[in-house]
Amino acid sequence: MTDFKKLSQEERSKIKAELLERYAEFQLRRITLDMTRGKPCAEQLDLALGMIEGDIGEAYLTPNGLDCRNYGGLDGIPEAKILFADYMGVEPDELILGGNSSLNMMHDTILRAMVKGVADSAPPWGRLPKVKFLCPSPGYDRHFFICEYLGIEMIPIDMSEGGPDMDSVEELAAADANIKGIWCVPKYSNPTGAVYSDEVVERLANMKTRAPDFRIFWDNAYAVHHLADSPPALKNLLRACKQAGNPDRVFMFGSTSKISFAGAGLAIMAGSQKNMQWVTNQMAFQTIGPDKLNQLRHTLFFKDMGGIESHMKKHAAIIKPKFDAVQSILENELSGKNIAAWSKPQGGYFVSIDTLEGCAAAVIEKAAGAGVKLTPAGSAYPYKNDPLDRNIRIAPTFPPLDDVRVAMELVAVCIQLVSLDKI
Amino acid sequence: MTDFKKLSQEERSKIKAELLERYAEFQLRRITLDMTRGKPCAEQLDLALGMIEGDIGEAYLTPNGLDCRNYGGLDGIPEAKILFADYMGVEPDELILGGNSSLNMMHDTILRAMVKGVADSAPPWGRLPKVKFLCPSPGYDRHFFICEYLGIEMIPIDMSEGGPDMDSVEELAAADANIKGIWCVPKYSNPTGAVYSDEVVERLANMKTRAPDFRIFWDNAYAVHHLADSPPALKNLLRACKQAGNPDRVFMFGSTSKISFAGAGLAIMAGSQKNMQWVTNQMAFQTIGPDKLNQLRHTLFFKDMGGIESHMKKHAAIIKPKFDAVQSILENELSGKNIAAWSKPQGGYFVSIDTLEGCAAAVIEKAAGAGVKLTPAGSAYPYKNDPLDRNIRIAPTFPPLDDVRVAMELVAVCIQLVSLDKI
Repeated sequence: MTDFKKLSQEERSKIKAELLERYAEFQLRRITLDMTRGKPCAEQLDLALGMIEGDIGEAYLTPNGLDCRNYGGLDGIPEAKILFADYMGVEPDELILGGNSSLNMMHDTILRAMVKGVADSAPPWGRLPKVKFLCPSPGYDRHFFICEYLGIEMIPIDMSEGGPDMDSVEELAAADANIKGIWCVPKYSNPTGAVYSDEVVERLANMKTRAPDFRIFWDNAYAVHHLADSPPALKNLLRACKQAGNPDRVFMFGSTSKISFAGAGLAIMAGSQKNMQWVTNQMAFQTIGPDKLNQLRHTLFFKDMGGIESHMKKHAAIIKPKFDAVQSILENELSGKNIAAWSKPQGGYFVSIDTLEGCAAAVIEKAAGAGVKLTPAGSAYPYKNDPLDRNIRIAPTFPPLDDVRVAMELVAVCIQLVSLDKI
Repeated sequence: MTDFKKLSQEERSKIKAELLERYAEFQLRRITLDMTRGKPCAEQLDLALGMIEGDIGEAYLTPNGLDCRNYGGLDGIPEAKILFADYMGVEPDELILGGNSSLNMMHDTILRAMVKGVADSAPPWGRLPKVKFLCPSPGYDRHFFICEYLGIEMIPIDMSEGGPDMDSVEELAAADANIKGIWCVPKYSNPTGAVYSDEVVERLANMKTRAPDFRIFWDNAYAVHHLADSPPALKNLLRACKQAGNPDRVFMFGSTSKISFAGAGLAIMAGSQKNMQWVTNQMAFQTIGPDKLNQLRHTLFFKDMGGIESHMKKHAAIIKPKFDAVQSILENELSGKNIAAWSKPQGGYFVSIDTLEGCAAAVIEKAAGAGVKLTPAGSAYPYKNDPLDRNIRIAPTFPPLDDVRVAMELVAVCIQLVSLDKI
């Protein structure tokens, strides 16, 4: 392939004409494809149908005779706590089971922090003139939306394959008492697929923070969502924080949204006993307890970590061909042209493409013009502001494989067209 | 029966000796009974087993083909919105379906009000030097706990059979801009069983409030939870508020916790379109949406309001004998003795007993001494402070009928013993 930056005027015109023709063909096909969100497809959801079918679907008593239909159980039924403690790498008393949304638990934790703080000794964040969060970017848009909603100032931090730029994180956290936290998706990060290195985990656990009530929001949404046969390991941050003498620094989150059902999974929060006590003391004002029937279903269906792991292999078998298609099309269409780089994730739900500077919004608009909706430009950055306008998030799991191919070919054509105009 | 206040010294000693003997007998029986909360019993929960069994339990597609297993649907699936709009007496676009807890929706609404206010034009309540709520008392303890948790000053308002003392409510609301709301359980009120009269509803809708962003928290938890064959009607507050030109004054809440499953029901919030838009705009930062599978189950199982109403008759058949037992035992044991008055609710989950002043805590302690746990003294009042120490909340639904009888006999014995010592 030819480096687009070194094309002659003639080559350039010829390539552009071919691309325009291909683009016009896409338009004629009247495609309507939505790739905006990381949603599982129906075949993935079918994998967990056993959870609502037969004996498991009809179960309501725990092995110890607790009636899951009735009130109670603020932090979860014991059987589910044991299973998901294993999942999170914590003890059962370091964990709270929530409703169907871990985002909800994160949102509530920060909203409460604004009104009540995060520990006995510290004032509510909302009483401070300013609260800031470190935001490794590109990152998860909904994390950033929570901060924007609550007026928390976001400081973007560069991301690499091994996690956030820890030199910046350490320097900022040590210097500014208004910096109260950092958002992390430590494994198969949304959208870059980064897996935090052991060194990054250790540095997060050990760094000095000017705010004594600094909290790491550790959204381990893709803990077991592997695409590779030999998945990379992630160091346990809670353990590292304990060893570093900072046991209360981390709030960990997880969910089964992309294990069982996206809309009817279980949300999990974990951390030190002291933190979990702090949270349940406050949750007691909010609810009598989450849906225990759904906890029971999960426990009976998955049984143990082995059950979850073998279930995730079935997910991978469905979605890996889609990720492979994304890679091979990007490779075929763009490699060597010096106009884009993209992630090759070993798990998770996204592929992240970096175009030339100033091209991403135009590419996304062009793709929409031929019927393929991508995540809006800038979404992966604080304030929806991608400073270099170069990041595109691809979510290939939901559409059928053939549609993923069509969409990616179109995206590749759009990237080339916009790049040619830019160069 | 003899008025205890008119007993001779001799009669008094004799009666006391008999009561002490009866109390000692209860102690010998080594009872352990928990009547602290208004929980449905297992037979009631069995009534809704069809919701998790067979085709309904396994359903995941709405009639229009929406996959309830996946993400989406912040305010509820259309079919469930139609059913519960009918239930709440509102239009489908005046309603939001939540998770399994209406308390959660109330809590979140107030917490958001503290941080973000309740309308575009009004400042967040948390920025004011003081926020106050009117609290008709006795009332629902968890309402009061939310206020206490958030530092909202509670002003008790007397309750009568037709609702709160509206003269006080109107006078206070008109005078004090810091009074931002009132808690109401308008039908079969917890714990007195009061049903708000049409006049009270009209006055709430029409009264002048000094705070332009005053909100009525209308927790209609027992809307269809009748014990009587000809249940009393409750005027529709949203409609009344619209007619009064105050359409945004009310947040209505409901739930199926005591219709389907206490721990796995549906929570509902309703109000003006403008209010619901305000709430969903904020909920969008909190969650992708509640559990739609559970909404689908409810819709398929109950079908329509007729389905809910006939289902509630089955509940009544199970719990009415327990309420009847409470009434007949209180009547047999206490009537004419001039030491207690009690509610005769036509629905809901509680019977409220008023003892002589200064007796309630001692009665509750004495009952516990013989193995029957009642709701802690003062629970039904702001700051857990029953100023006259006279209210006892009886929750007869959960224990088996025979246990209800035993517990009520014991309670009656305790009331007599404590009263004798008090007189």
